[in-house]
Amino acid sequence: MANSMRAIVKAAAAPGAVYQEVPIPVIGPRDVLVKVHTASICGTDLHIFDWDPWSQSRIHPPLVFGHEFCGHIARLGAEVAELREGELVSADMHVFCGHCYQCRSGEAHICQNVKILGVDGPGCFAEYVRIPAANIVPLGEGISTDYGAILDPLGNAVHTVLAGPVAGRSVAVVGCGPIGLMSIAVARACGAGPVIASEVNAHRRGLAETMGADVVLDPTTEDVAARARALTPGGGVDAALEFSGHPDGIRAAFHLARPGGRVSLLGIPARPVELDLTRDIIFKGLTVQGINGRRLFDTWHQMLGLLREKRLALEPLFTDRLPLRDFALGVERLRQGKAAKVLLTP
Amino acid sequence: MANSMRAIVKAAAAPGAVYQEVPIPVIGPRDVLVKVHTASICGTDLHIFDWDPWSQSRIHPPLVFGHEFCGHIARLGAEVAELREGELVSADMHVFCGHCYQCRSGEAHICQNVKILGVDGPGCFAEYVRIPAANIVPLGEGISTDYGAILDPLGNAVHTVLAGPVAGRSVAVVGCGPIGLMSIAVARACGAGPVIASEVNAHRRGLAETMGADVVLDPTTEDVAARARALTPGGGVDAALEFSGHPDGIRAAFHLARPGGRVSLLGIPARPVELDLTRDIIFKGLTVQGINGRRLFDTWHQMLGLLREKRLALEPLFTDRLPLRDFALGVERLRQGKAAKVLLTP
Amino acid sequence: MANSMRAIVKAAAAPGAVYQEVPIPVIGPRDVLVKVHTASICGTDLHIFDWDPWSQSRIHPPLVFGHEFCGHIARLGAEVAELREGELVSADMHVFCGHCYQCRSGEAHICQNVKILGVDGPGCFAEYVRIPAANIVPLGEGISTDYGAILDPLGNAVHTVLAGPVAGRSVAVVGCGPIGLMSIAVARACGAGPVIASEVNAHRRGLAETMGADVVLDPTTEDVAARARALTPGGGVDAALEFSGHPDGIRAAFHLARPGGRVSLLGIPARPVELDLTRDIIFKGLTVQGINGRRLFDTWHQMLGLLREKRLALEPLFTDRLPLRDFALGVERLRQGKAAKVLLTP
Amino acid sequence: MANSMRAIVKAAAAPGAVYQEVPIPVIGPRDVLVKVHTASICGTDLHIFDWDPWSQSRIHPPLVFGHEFCGHIARLGAEVAELREGELVSADMHVFCGHCYQCRSGEAHICQNVKILGVDGPGCFAEYVRIPAANIVPLGEGISTDYGAILDPLGNAVHTVLAGPVAGRSVAVVGCGPIGLMSIAVARACGAGPVIASEVNAHRRGLAETMGADVVLDPTTEDVAARARALTPGGGVDAALEFSGHPDGIRAAFHLARPGGRVSLLGIPARPVELDLTRDIIFKGLTVQGINGRRLFDTWHQMLGLLREKRLALEPLFTDRLPLRDFALGVERLRQGKAAKVLLTP
Repeated sequence: MANSMRAIVKAAAAPGAVYQEVPIPVIGPRDVLVKVHTASICGTDLHIFDWDPWSQSRIHPPLVFGHEFCGHIARLGAEVAELREGELVSADMHVFCGHCYQCRSGEAHICQNVKILGVDGPGCFAEYVRIPAANIVPLGEGISTDYGAILDPLGNAVHTVLAGPVAGRSVAVVGCGPIGLMSIAVARACGAGPVIASEVNAHRRGLAETMGADVVLDPTTEDVAARARALTPGGGVDAALEFSGHPDGIRAAFHLARPGGRVSLLGIPARPVELDLTRDIIFKGLTVQGINGRRLFDTWHQMLGLLREKRLALEPLFTDRLPLRDFALGVERLRQGKAAKVLLTP
Repeated sequence: MANSMRAIVKAAAAPGAVYQEVPIPVIGPRDVLVKVHTASICGTDLHIFDWDPWSQSRIHPPLVFGHEFCGHIARLGAEVAELREGELVSADMHVFCGHCYQCRSGEAHICQNVKILGVDGPGCFAEYVRIPAANIVPLGEGISTDYGAILDPLGNAVHTVLAGPVAGRSVAVVGCGPIGLMSIAVARACGAGPVIASEVNAHRRGLAETMGADVVLDPTTEDVAARARALTPGGGVDAALEFSGHPDGIRAAFHLARPGGRVSLLGIPARPVELDLTRDIIFKGLTVQGINGRRLFDTWHQMLGLLREKRLALEPLFTDRLPLRDFALGVERLRQGKAAKVLLTP
Repeated sequence: MANSMRAIVKAAAAPGAVYQEVPIPVIGPRDVLVKVHTASICGTDLHIFDWDPWSQSRIHPPLVFGHEFCGHIARLGAEVAELREGELVSADMHVFCGHCYQCRSGEAHICQNVKILGVDGPGCFAEYVRIPAANIVPLGEGISTDYGAILDPLGNAVHTVLAGPVAGRSVAVVGCGPIGLMSIAVARACGAGPVIASEVNAHRRGLAETMGADVVLDPTTEDVAARARALTPGGGVDAALEFSGHPDGIRAAFHLARPGGRVSLLGIPARPVELDLTRDIIFKGLTVQGINGRRLFDTWHQMLGLLREKRLALEPLFTDRLPLRDFALGVERLRQGKAAKVLLTP
Repeated sequence: MANSMRAIVKAAAAPGAVYQEVPIPVIGPRDVLVKVHTASICGTDLHIFDWDPWSQSRIHPPLVFGHEFCGHIARLGAEVAELREGELVSADMHVFCGHCYQCRSGEAHICQNVKILGVDGPGCFAEYVRIPAANIVPLGEGISTDYGAILDPLGNAVHTVLAGPVAGRSVAVVGCGPIGLMSIAVARACGAGPVIASEVNAHRRGLAETMGADVVLDPTTEDVAARARALTPGGGVDAALEFSGHPDGIRAAFHLARPGGRVSLLGIPARPVELDLTRDIIFKGLTVQGINGRRLFDTWHQMLGLLREKRLALEPLFTDRLPLRDFALGVERLRQGKAAKVLLTP
């Protein structure tokens, strides 16, 4: 194996990214080195590319970024006995400490000392990526490399949908970006009904239908909460899932949910949001959940179960395929709102 | 309205049943009278027909029996404001007292004073049936009378399947009588995978495939627990659902479940069963659930949600249609193992 | 029995209340008439007395108000077989419809058609009160009339504390009015530890210690979130219970909770509150619960269990005893911050 | 540090044990060496001493046995950064693989590849014991070495009691050996009531009262199920906890539980048990749980929470203190039924 590889690098504290030669990571005794087969671009990567305020406060260039991928194990650390070279794997990029209260309570996804590969350390927009063995998820038979490349956001969707009961229950999906769209498919596959999608963008509303939403609404022209009440017996949906991160979307989620329902928040608002807690949470007896990452590894088990048995058909989301070097083109496609998931090949 | 109607009656403490004229039930202020549109035969009805030991200890002839049906409301009791004449409805035939600890804890399905219509009081194999308004379930739009007639056993299936998480989880169905077959369809619709069915009867194994089982096994020729271990990552299925009531089926369910999994028991063994609690429950950290009836009305809400959104395709189970007068023919068909659900029309 | 009784009446749409003669309520076939033994004043009664904006929008004078009480059954409606004259009872004053989705899902405490006795209809500040039998809770042996008079707010406390696991878990109580103080005692009795109380009023901080708080903090002089982090292994408390309804208290609750913890909101803010959802809910993976009333009747069962076995010692909260006619004096005592619970005897 | 130490050793495949010199364990990079401060004798140790059939099938002499202890960290493996020398610690002796489905699902206590120190590898009846760092639990402030020595069985008790809700709920403890006795104290501390204990041995019934049982019954002279029904509103206890492992105790647990209640099984029957599943589980809608070990590390967190805040007073169980060399005397004391927990000091 050579000592260097090509990678997409945030080289300087400024907008942009460069495709350049960097050293192949050296692995420790409990790490593995994965040869990246397919990677995928996340909205977070656009923030890093753009060098927005969040990136400025969090990212330390130079950094190989990217955190959605699958690939084959190229090298095993000396103490890693449970994996084998050549296996097709993905990984949860949230590197957990293993020692804190949360890690020891089955809640490693909210480890107090978490570091995210591709954000706080080198990521997967490269030919090789170093991953702690504890974070590796073997994909086994029956999962293609396209699906393998999007398990990080799909895991967000599965985590959000299955954070409460959905079988035979009504579900609203607020915001139909890639994770919202995946959530529609997951909710359908898990017996939810009706699945009501709310999205301002017409192109995405089309994709929401393709993903299996029973009802697709435009919140700029329709009263989505009133429609939900008309479509459900409980005075609103059993579960309102929020992916937009927009204050209007968040407030809509609270209006959509029935008394006694749940609101699960994944979309990240840039600023504090004013809420009518009395009317929208307390008197309604709502349950509100903050959703972060994916449960380790319960969400992965559920997701792989759904994929192995072909319960999800996400092909319409694989809109673009590019060589890794053309990362900037992928950014462009996403910005135009034409792409859902852009797959990159090193 | 006339004063009498035709009904299937257990007329005497002996095998058989007669089709005869009986008075139309008189309703109280909180009852409704339903004109039966379609009824369906349950295994329990065969026991009553046959006058087996259980029937002898429980049934007091003369009795109009039958407890699976749907129909239209013909008359409302004076105090019933929440329903309306002409509505298509079904009912949970477990008449709960409303006052006991269980009724006041959201567990009315295991009311300490329960009486079952069609067993402890007059049932639905008749032109009309009297039902307490509190037990009525309006079907609303989008549910056919065929489906409406089988909501009692379908509710058993939904209760059993959804007594724990199934989305992205492996499920075994032991015993593919009508409720087991419905459970396969429900588990599939709710994201379970793989769904593994075990059944000794070849005809039913065929129906299990039709219902959507991923793997169908014959326990007389295959080691179902070993197959389940090979097909799942956890050393067995996440949920083993028992519908046979046979000691071998029950023990198989415990072997099929993974450490930490669940076993849900609906099938009713005729005699005590010997279990290796140490190996099969305690060291495995299993959860075992006794499943009785349907949750009032959580199970009904989930079931109606699945049906309204067309998540279940149970048509292959509607094998026979007969006029009510030919009830004995339906019994015969079921005995021959050819029928799944026999629908009766008064 | 006479036809009239003495009662505290909101006689006009203006501040104040009068003690006057009113007709004894006439009961329907499924109601009971209770002879009030002891009543108790709630903060809501002060709002009604003061004729604040909420009261102006909700209350229709003339109204006998009051909703905390116990008494003996004086008369049974014709259809009420499950109760008996002379029984000591209390009642949940949330009159639920029994027919809506929530009522039929074990969530009658958030019934879509709820009417509250003492707010939307005649209450218990009177010699007699009419209560639907379905709302009556017999107290059985071993519960005194003092405790019987405060089961409404104690039920709020039990509902809030036991809305998640507390045994061996750390709990913060934000706001030590009567319900917060009761919650301290409940949390202690149910194995919580440490129980951390936060309260601005020195007198109430003293009562918080009496109720069994392990640590009592003054949020005006101490950083309660930092103290909680120092006292707990998880980076904050497992459960933060909010009773103040003040925006600062609410935000403090979110800071007090550990990643993965829960925040249960009972205190009612008068206005919308701005929250940093990203930092305080989403990234922390928090669960937030709106708490309304008491679960029917699960909370009552738990509360009566705790009281029958003498697990709670709330006597220090019974600070004042007055005849019903001196209601206005009780209001005065509460306003001065000297009283916790004011017990009234008709 | 010397190279050898004194230990209690199962030296040969025969009854008995010897106190002899053995090498101090050599630790790996992720292990720690703990200097044992106090150990305690478990019933399992008696089985090993007696060389019963189970021991013959499982134990490979020579073996240092013992699995209940606390001590101070004497040496840290090269990669162990999260602990420090001199810390007072205990450990869960179930060495889990970390890689299997259960380990990756927050269920490491039922790891498919578990090895138990003191059974499958060298244990703590010695001056030093080697423990994987992942199994170490630091005790922090406020927990004495006496309590530290019994956390393994106390963890069994906490796991069993808190496997379902107990606050304000009725609990039956069947079998009052040490773990049953601890469970009484835990149930009381966590708000259970009434706590009903059933035990054939008069001495242990006395200890059951000392531990805080509200009602103590002798099943050889009383109908415990009938008493439970009379003492509870639900037709039996909410939770029946089984510690005897005796078929009569197990069947009693099923009779004690109310419809809809739970039965948690920790006691280990030596042979299969015949159960009336239809009457005792299915029609009652019971939940049955197999309880194994302690949840890693949720149970430990709850237990340490209870102990730090002094919610448990278990001193009456510390009946005997002996030097390690007198292990055989401790065995004798336990056999006579006089001792509860025998504490050993190396």
